[in-house]
Amino acid sequence: MTKDRYQQGLDKLMELTTPDSNNPTGHMDIGEGFKDIAPDLSKFVVEFAFGDIYARPGLDNKQKVLTTISALVAQGTPQIEMHVKTGLTVGLTPEEMVGCIMHLIPYVGFPRALNALKAAQKVFEENGVTVNS
Amino acid sequence: MTKDRYQQGLDKLMELTTPDSNNPTGHMDIGEGFKDIAPDLSKFVVEFAFGDIYARPGLDNKQKVLTTISALVAQGTPQIEMHVKTGLTVGLTPEEMVGCIMHLIPYVGFPRALNALKAAQKVFEENGVTVNS
Amino acid sequence: MTKDRYQQGLDKLMELTTPDSNNPTGHMDIGEGFKDIAPDLSKFVVEFAFGDIYARPGLDNKQKVLTTISALVAQGTPQIEMHVKTGLTVGLTPEEMVGCIMHLIPYVGFPRALNALKAAQKVFEENGVTVNS
Amino acid sequence: MTKDRYQQGLDKLMELTTPDSNNPTGHMDIGEGFKDIAPDLSKFVVEFAFGDIYARPGLDNKQKVLTTISALVAQGTPQIEMHVKTGLTVGLTPEEMVGCIMHLIPYVGFPRALNALKAAQKVFEENGVTVNS
Amino acid sequence: MTKDRYQQGLDKLMELTTPDSNNPTGHMDIGEGFKDIAPDLSKFVVEFAFGDIYARPGLDNKQKVLTTISALVAQGTPQIEMHVKTGLTVGLTPEEMVGCIMHLIPYVGFPRALNALKAAQKVFEENGVTVNS
Amino acid sequence: MTKDRYQQGLDKLMELTTPDSNNPTGHMDIGEGFKDIAPDLSKFVVEFAFGDIYARPGLDNKQKVLTTISALVAQGTPQIEMHVKTGLTVGLTPEEMVGCIMHLIPYVGFPRALNALKAAQKVFEENGVTVNS
Repeated sequence: MTKDRYQQGLDKLMELTTPDSNNPTGHMDIGEGFKDIAPDLSKFVVEFAFGDIYARPGLDNKQKVLTTISALVAQGTPQIEMHVKTGLTVGLTPEEMVGCIMHLIPYVGFPRALNALKAAQKVFEENGVTVNS
Repeated sequence: MTKDRYQQGLDKLMELTTPDSNNPTGHMDIGEGFKDIAPDLSKFVVEFAFGDIYARPGLDNKQKVLTTISALVAQGTPQIEMHVKTGLTVGLTPEEMVGCIMHLIPYVGFPRALNALKAAQKVFEENGVTVNS
Repeated sequence: MTKDRYQQGLDKLMELTTPDSNNPTGHMDIGEGFKDIAPDLSKFVVEFAFGDIYARPGLDNKQKVLTTISALVAQGTPQIEMHVKTGLTVGLTPEEMVGCIMHLIPYVGFPRALNALKAAQKVFEENGVTVNS
Repeated sequence: MTKDRYQQGLDKLMELTTPDSNNPTGHMDIGEGFKDIAPDLSKFVVEFAFGDIYARPGLDNKQKVLTTISALVAQGTPQIEMHVKTGLTVGLTPEEMVGCIMHLIPYVGFPRALNALKAAQKVFEENGVTVNS
Repeated sequence: MTKDRYQQGLDKLMELTTPDSNNPTGHMDIGEGFKDIAPDLSKFVVEFAFGDIYARPGLDNKQKVLTTISALVAQGTPQIEMHVKTGLTVGLTPEEMVGCIMHLIPYVGFPRALNALKAAQKVFEENGVTVNS
Repeated sequence: MTKDRYQQGLDKLMELTTPDSNNPTGHMDIGEGFKDIAPDLSKFVVEFAFGDIYARPGLDNKQKVLTTISALVAQGTPQIEMHVKTGLTVGLTPEEMVGCIMHLIPYVGFPRALNALKAAQKVFEENGVTVNS
C-alpha cells in the first residue's frame, strides 16, 4: 500500500535528519515549500526518493550520503549543503566528507571541488564542527 | 622528492589493480597510451591523481571508489567501467556498486543511471561476478 | 496499492509504445535487461517514471515527449532515439520533433543539436518516416 | 536583407513579451545590458535566436517555451525564470509549466527539478498567478 | 543582405578547412547530412556560426580554435576531432593543442581530458602529424 | 623536490596575479580560505594546478587563460570572474576575452555565454577597463 512506502520514506528520513519545531523533516527539504504549485511533489520525494531508493539495501547510510554528495559535486547543484548536514547526522566525520570532495578533484576539476568545500565549510561552521587534520 | 610521490602513486595503484603481462598497471589506465603526444601525462596521473589524491587519508579505498563511480555516473563519461573493476579489486561487492548506481537515480535521473548499470553489467560479466538480490 | 501504480505505469506505457513478440514494452526500455543485477529497477521505472510521473496530469503525451527529448538533447545522453520513437507513437510529427531540436540550438549549441538530429534521422529512417519542409 | 531578419525577430519577440516603459522587449533579456562590451550581441539574439530559430515553423510558441524550459532545467542555468514568464505570455498555464518541470524528474533528478520549481514559483508569485491542482 | 552573411561564412570556412572532391567544406561538418530532415540547418551553420560568429573580430583563428576545443573538452561532445583537424589547418601546432587539453585537467578533470587526448591522437595519426616534446 | 614544484607554482602565479597587502596571491584563489578543513588543498593547487600544469610548455599564458575561460563558460561555474581578471594581468585585451565568450555562443548556447559576459563585465568595471568596438 502507498502508506507503507510513505511510512518507509518517513522512517528513512528520520535516520537522516532531526525534526524540529519548524519542520518535521528537520534540515531535509522534501519539497513542502512547493505545496502551492506541486502538491504531489513531497509525496514523490518521500515515497520514491526516500521510501524506494534511499531505503534500498546494498549501501549503508554513510555510503549513500557519500554517493549523493559526489554526484552533487559533479553537478554543481546547491543541494550539497543539505547532504553534508545529512552526513553529519548519519555519522560521517568531517574528515570523511572533506576527503570525499578532495578525492573528486581529479575527476571534476578544482573549481567544482572548491565550490563544494565552500558549502561543506558553511555547514561545519553552522554546526560547530571542526576537522582534524 | 618527486620519486616519493611517484612511488606513493604506484603503491596506491597496486591496491587498486592487478598488474598483468600486458600492462604493469593492470586494468587501470594511467595515460601510457598517450606517451607519443603527452609524455608527461602518466607522470601527472601517477603522482597527482594517485600519489597525492587517491593516497590521501580521510576515506578508505572502498569509499573512494564509490565516490569516483558516483561522479562519473553524474558526468556520463565512459571511465565508469574502469572504476567498477577497481571496486571489485578493493573489495566492494557487486551489490554495493549496483546500490551506488541505483541510489543516484533521484539525483541524476534514470538515463544516466541505466547507462552506468550497462557499464557495471559488462564488467561483472567479464569478471564472472554475479549479484545476490 | 503498489499494483495500481504498476498498472498505471503499464497503461501509460501502452500509450507510448507498441508491444511486439520480443518485448512486451515494445521499443521502450524499462530496465528489464538489468534484471540480473538490479531486479527492482524495472519496477521503479514502471511505477515511478511511468505510473507516477508520466501519467501525471498537466501536460499531454505530445508535450511530455517534447519535454523529455529537450532534456536529453541538453544532456547529450543516448536515450534520445528511444524518445523520438515514442514521439512518433504518440502522434508528434517529424516536423515537430525536428523543430524541437532546431529550437534548442540557441540554448545548447550546435554540437548537441546536431548529435540529436543524427539520432532523430536514424529513427525516421528505421521507421520509414520523412520530413515535410 | 538583415533588416527583415531583425524585424522578424522583433515581431516574434512581441509574441513572447510585453514592452514596458523601461524596456522595449519587456521581461525578455536580449543582451542590451552588454552594449558596452559586446554591441553586436543583441543583434545576434534578435536576428538569430528570435528571427531565425524562434520564428521557425514546426512548433507553436507554447511548444517552443516548453522546449526551452526543459533544456534550461537540465542545464541548471538561471534563465529559467525568464522563460517561465514567457510561458505565461504565450498562454501556457501554470499547470502545464509545473507539469513540464515535474515530468523532468526521472530524467534530470530531483535537485535540478526543485531548483526549477523555485524559479517558477517566484515568477508565479510576481505575476499573481496560482496553480489549480 | 543574407547572401553577404552566407558568403562571409563560406569565406571563413575556407580559412578553416580544405575542400575536397567529396565535400565542398572539406572535413568541416556544416549539417549537410541533415538536408532531408532540416534543410535550413546548414544555412544557419554557415551564416550564423561561421558568418556572424567565427568571422567576428576580436580573436584570431588560432585563438578561436583553442576556444572551441576547450568548450568541447568540457562538454565531452564528439566534435572535438573535427576542431582538432581545424586547428591543424589554421596553423595551431600539435603541441599547442595537446597543451590546451593538458591545461584543462585542473578544470575539467582527467577523464574528460583523456577522452579529448584520444580524439586528438586519432586526428594526428590520420594526418601524419607528430608531437615534439 | 616538492619545494621546486611549489616554487614553480608560485613563480607561475606571480605571472598571473599581483600580490597585495591582503593576499600574497592577489586576486587568485588558491584555496587558502579552506585551510581549516583541507590544509593540503592550497599545496595541491600551487604545486599541481600551477607548478605542473599552468607552467607546462606548449601554450603561452594568454592562450592558457582563454582555454580556462572557455571551459568555465561551458561549465557555468563562478570562477569565470577570477580568470577574466587573470586575463587582464597577462595582457589579454577585453576585446579578446569578449571575443572568446562571443565565440562560444554556437557551442554552449546564449544563456551560458550571457552569464559569462555578466562576469566579464563586472571584472571590467571593477578594473576601470573599457572595450573598444
